[in-house]
Amino acid sequence: MQNKPLILITNDDGIKAKGISELIDTAKEYGDIVVVAPDKGNSGKSHSVTFTEPLYLTHISENNGITKYTCSGTPVDSVKMAIHQVLKRKPDLIVSGINHGSNASISVIYSGTMAAAIEGCMNGIPSVGFSLLDFRSDADFSIARHYAAKIINQVLKNGLPFGTCLNVNIPSIPTNESKGIKICRQTNGVWNEIFEERKHPFGTSYFWLTGSFQNHEPEAKDTDEWALKNNYVAIVPIKIDLTSYDALDIINSWEF
Amino acid sequence: MQNKPLILITNDDGIKAKGISELIDTAKEYGDIVVVAPDKGNSGKSHSVTFTEPLYLTHISENNGITKYTCSGTPVDSVKMAIHQVLKRKPDLIVSGINHGSNASISVIYSGTMAAAIEGCMNGIPSVGFSLLDFRSDADFSIARHYAAKIINQVLKNGLPFGTCLNVNIPSIPTNESKGIKICRQTNGVWNEIFEERKHPFGTSYFWLTGSFQNHEPEAKDTDEWALKNNYVAIVPIKIDLTSYDALDIINSWEF
Repeated sequence: MQNKPLILITNDDGIKAKGISELIDTAKEYGDIVVVAPDKGNSGKSHSVTFTEPLYLTHISENNGITKYTCSGTPVDSVKMAIHQVLKRKPDLIVSGINHGSNASISVIYSGTMAAAIEGCMNGIPSVGFSLLDFRSDADFSIARHYAAKIINQVLKNGLPFGTCLNVNIPSIPTNESKGIKICRQTNGVWNEIFEERKHPFGTSYFWLTGSFQNHEPEAKDTDEWALKNNYVAIVPIKIDLTSYDALDIINSWEF
Repeated sequence: MQNKPLILITNDDGIKAKGISELIDTAKEYGDIVVVAPDKGNSGKSHSVTFTEPLYLTHISENNGITKYTCSGTPVDSVKMAIHQVLKRKPDLIVSGINHGSNASISVIYSGTMAAAIEGCMNGIPSVGFSLLDFRSDADFSIARHYAAKIINQVLKNGLPFGTCLNVNIPSIPTNESKGIKICRQTNGVWNEIFEERKHPFGTSYFWLTGSFQNHEPEAKDTDEWALKNNYVAIVPIKIDLTSYDALDIINSWEF
């Protein structure tokens, strides 16, 4: 390739998170970097887009092939602004993260990190979301950087099938304890929510959403949750076509 | 069934929208109704959940087998609050909508209406999102009610396969001009965004997100967009397992 690859980086924890700095430092070895990331935390924002409020775009810095902007909106707004407002050409790769915390199993559906990758995929751009299983703001990203480098290299070399992006989750362990990469399917599970009720100083009740993940198939070795529990890095290829092809005939047999 | 079915109703346009009133009036023929809906518009909120702000739940009314609450959060928050805080038993059906505007093709991924149905599906509850192709607040929902009744009846009778919910889009035409129901796959397309730049009174620029849908396969007769253009009601069965099974072998062949 004559020109260096153009790599767009975003996340959902916001521009100030450690995870995006680690991803920038990893990806800069592979191309020119443009960062368009939310100016604040956007965890759990999923594929939200902002059209009832104005959006602000702020140029932050430009140093050694790394250009940074913040967007006042969501991760998906950031990708849209990058593609349609900031970049002069389609990027060769979008990487999102590195998220502080897991986006495995059905958490992919709630995740702003993965929504950014899915938005890139919708636009025909090879896209990958990275998540480390450590919520702490000062998490150690050594293992995540080690595997992110390998995966970025492979995606730039091979591309990705149309309509497919990657959900990469990385266990929070020393790199030399990892068993390597496992290609998986999304674990079947659910979030069991508990609404913690509290009293407002003025007397009304309010609720905090908390919950715990319930794995419906903890023994299934081809799932991302099993891989992570067994010290593998889990890659799940994710589709943007949500059609349940198996169900077409079933619904077609109904008598409306 | 000895007891009447318990039907949970929500939407993303908020409790005051005409569409949810029309859905309540339609569904009440089939069971006891509990409404937990956002207290304001939540279009484009996708599968957002609220855990950095407190949530408020307000009991609104209880009349003739119809109980109404509002939730200060998103459509998905509303479903979670309904299941885990409001309802004494699992509902037999969740219906979401009737949305003012299309959620066909990839709009399913941005849609709060469909996110509510997907959340219900994750919890093992048969769930359907309904959308009418008319954005107007005073839209005529006659055709939507006609087909919603048929579909509610069938889902209560047949259930839905595990991990599958329904995305129902309805053309805005007189009921007698409709050609009936067509079971479809999700159309392959993309939103081409235009960021309209304006000047703030204080001099900075801000942007409005606008865009138009581009259908990548306008001739494909098995898609929801084709069905809607040809006066059919489009039902797409939607999966919550986003794994691209076709891509597993491809990614497995990479040399990391």
